[in-house]
Parts: sequence; C-alpha cells; structure tokens
Amino acid sequence: MRRQITGYSNPTVKHLRSLRDKKHRRREGKFLVEGLRLLTDALDSGRVPEMLVMAEARDPHPLLATLERAVDEAGGEIIETTPDILGKITGKDNPQIVAGMFAEFDTSLKLIDRSNASIWLVAQALRDPGNLGTMLRTGDALGAGGLILIDDCADPFSVEAVRASMGAVFTQQVAQAPWSDFLRWLRGDAEQLPGQLVAASLRDAVAYRGAPYSAPCFVLIGNESRGLPEEYEAACDLRVTMPMRGRADSLNAAVAAAVLGYEVLASLDG
Amino acid sequence: MRRQITGYSNPTVKHLRSLRDKKHRRREGKFLVEGLRLLTDALDSGRVPEMLVMAEARDPHPLLATLERAVDEAGGEIIETTPDILGKITGKDNPQIVAGMFAEFDTSLKLIDRSNASIWLVAQALRDPGNLGTMLRTGDALGAGGLILIDDCADPFSVEAVRASMGAVFTQQVAQAPWSDFLRWLRGDAEQLPGQLVAASLRDAVAYRGAPYSAPCFVLIGNESRGLPEEYEAACDLRVTMPMRGRADSLNAAVAAAVLGYEVLASLDG
Repeated sequence: MRRQITGYSNPTVKHLRSLRDKKHRRREGKFLVEGLRLLTDALDSGRVPEMLVMAEARDPHPLLATLERAVDEAGGEIIETTPDILGKITGKDNPQIVAGMFAEFDTSLKLIDRSNASIWLVAQALRDPGNLGTMLRTGDALGAGGLILIDDCADPFSVEAVRASMGAVFTQQVAQAPWSDFLRWLRGDAEQLPGQLVAASLRDAVAYRGAPYSAPCFVLIGNESRGLPEEYEAACDLRVTMPMRGRADSLNAAVAAAVLGYEVLASLDG
Repeated sequence: MRRQITGYSNPTVKHLRSLRDKKHRRREGKFLVEGLRLLTDALDSGRVPEMLVMAEARDPHPLLATLERAVDEAGGEIIETTPDILGKITGKDNPQIVAGMFAEFDTSLKLIDRSNASIWLVAQALRDPGNLGTMLRTGDALGAGGLILIDDCADPFSVEAVRASMGAVFTQQVAQAPWSDFLRWLRGDAEQLPGQLVAASLRDAVAYRGAPYSAPCFVLIGNESRGLPEEYEAACDLRVTMPMRGRADSLNAAVAAAVLGYEVLASLDG
C-alpha cells in the first residue's frame, strides 16, 4: 500500500516520531531504522520493515527500489513525504532519504540456542547505547551468536544503538533478562548445561591471555562506571584481567568486550 | 584570585561558554574540562587549570579543596557562580559542580620522543570525538606513549573527547600532523629512524595474531567509514587484518585500535 503524507500533524507522522522515545517503542513494540545502508543490511538479513517512509524528490537508487519491492511483497506500507517531515520524524536537520519501521524482535532468553555459536557476549547494566551497538558490531565480527543484556541496560532498539551496530542488530541475536533468570538459564535446572561464564574483572583474576576458555563461552562485561557486582563475578567460571599499564584501571566497556572476545576466538580456534 | 559571577552576560561566562565551539578553542588556545573526577585526573598528571569555575552551595569535597589549593598556588583564577550559570557554560541541564579551563597542549609532532614507549597509536581522519577519547583511554591502558592524529581528525580538546578519554588526554601525548609530515618525521631524512608502521587493513594483509611486530610500533587506524587511503597502507611496514566472521567487513575504529594494540603489547612483551 502506498500513500502520500504532506501534513506535520498526520497521525502516522506523530506515531513514527514517538518511536524516538523508549517508552513509546516499548508500548508499540516498534522501532525506527534510518538510512538506506542500514535498511539494506536489514533486508540482507531477512528483515523487512512494516513501513517505509521515503523523501519525495529523492534520487533514484537501485537499493531503494529493491527495498520498496520487498516491502510491497510483504504487504507493508510505503509512505512518501517531504524531506522536512522526514526530518521531523527522525529528529535530524539533514535526514536520510528513507527510514523504516520494524516490529521489535522477541528478546526472550529462551529463544537463544547456545549451540549455535562458540562465543556469546553478555553485558550487565550497560548504559550507553553506542557501547551496546558497538558490542553487537564486534559480536558480528567475532562470529558470536548474539548479545545478552542483563539487568537494566540501554535499549538495543534505540536509534543510537542500531546505528552503532552497523546493521549487526539484524544479524546478532539479542536477549534481555535479569541476572537470576540468566544464571538459571545458563546453568540449567537438573543437569549441568554446557557454557563457560567469563568475567572481565579486576578481582581474583587470571591474565586474559592464554586463559583456559571453552565453548560455548559467555563473555561478561559490567557497567561502564561500576563494573560487575562482586557476587556476579563470584558466580563466573573464570575471571580474567587485561593489562592496565597506565593510570586508569579499566577500559571502555565495548573495548573490553572486543579485546577479550578476540582472545577467546583465538583460543577456541587455536 | 577569587571572584563571584552572578550575571549571565558576564564576559567571562561568554568566554568560557564559547569554548564549547572548536573555532573558539582554536582561537583562544583554551579548552574546558567538566567534573571533579576529570579535574583530579588532570591534577594527578601535573596539569593545573588556569581557571576553576565552581557552583555556589556545592557540597564540600576534599578533592575539590585540593584542586582549589593547586589553582591558587599556580596563580590561577577561581570563580564561584550559580549552578544555572555553570549549566549555561557547560551546556548541561545538570552540570557538574566544577569545571576548569586549561591552555591547550602543544600538539607538535616534534615534541614526541618515540623512545619513550613501545607502542604509539595513530589515527587518520578519525571523525568521532568519542572514538578519539576512547583511543586515548586505550592508549593509557596499553602503556602507549600517545596518540598521533593524522590529517583532519576530531578535536582532542572537545568535551566529548576529553570525557571519553577518562582523563587519558592528560597522560597520553597528543600530536597532530598531515600525513606527509608524519611520514617524514617517522622515517627521518638522512638516516633511517627506528619505528614500525602497522596498518589495520583489509588489503594484502597478514593475520594480526602472531605478526612480526617490533618496537617502537606505530599502530595506524583509518577513518570510520572509508578506512585508510590505499597509498597510506602501501607506505606501512606491515598490514594486518583481524578475523571478520560475520557480515560486516570492519570493526569500530576504537575497537580495532584496542584489539590490535593489545596484540602488539602481548607480542612485544612475550
């Protein structure tokens, strides 16, 4: 279905615009993705937007035509509007020529099949959406299965997280769970399930280089300013530390995930 | 010297506020640092602000008292003002209780003594100040000597870069230079100077793991979206690549610097 929108006060414009806000995303179960590149990444991963919003008087582009066809075939809606209104929706002065609305993915832990990958990234109380998106991007590069968000984290469906993920939000599985649920899922009830939980830590830790990693390896990174709670670290199978040769005692969270993740990858491959 | 400022239109307020803008920072040769933690990091590294701006009715804090003493002793200026005006200066609704103005550091390449460290990070056309600050923070952790910014990079003295550096802007040396100047400095004129230039690359590259790194090692990372120009890579002594197991063909620039930097550290230490 196709239609044109020319008015700022159109309900669809208001609805799309409201998705910049986490509360509305949660209530509607939808999120926005801006730009042809990210939307093409989504399509390549089999994700078709329910609604496509395009600027009038845009330059033709073969990828955009492909996107339009996919949305049409999936029975989605295609909206043409002015660049100004598209800017109002995305909150940008220089908006991309296209945005898409997707249904949020199911982030239940039970959807994760740990046998799908040797590495899984796990973040606890991660507050920065840029760090979250960067961890998704790193996970994609590592061949990780996905990112498990523990406790109160930034929103993986925020524009900042989606953008920083460079499309990896569509290829990496994302799950959200409180710590207790995660631990129960990880360890299993009756039988001991496979899975090594490794914390990037400063306490009682061994050198990250050459540590005895095993698959499936769950790499756990704590909050940006507080790190991991002590009892969370205590529940891990392995605590590892990276060299800190300077004044600071920690790395950026997404950087720590990457340095440790690449070490785990090399160890499991080697 | 101490004084109180109660008016928004005070010239000092306007001056400090203007430092949020790169153009004004360049013209004045000053930059702003927000928050007690960063200012304490600066002091620990021997950097005393020329001017300290504090909110009235703040809670007393021993670190703040130390900071005030240091500024007094160095002949700097201490200004007390309302939280509202401090918020206007820093552009925050909830400003920190204190901000400091520093003279920008000299970022001439000739100030860098390569024998001071085994690792140096080098970034080309890095556009994101958060990435820049994160690279400084990683450099501190690696025990690197500093960060050399090639061509047109984000401003290391922006509030975002200083904040992301977590104080490392005060411990890591920062230099800025065009590529041709950097290459001339690196290689030397008559005699061949020591220094291995290593590019994170996708072209004609060897595996980053176990590659023949040597000190002083200059780890070169390219622009966030375009990577390194081909002729820059060609001028490197070694081109290395990280595994990319997913859909994407690159890592976040600060992540790439960290993964490669830690591999170089392990190799030189080992």
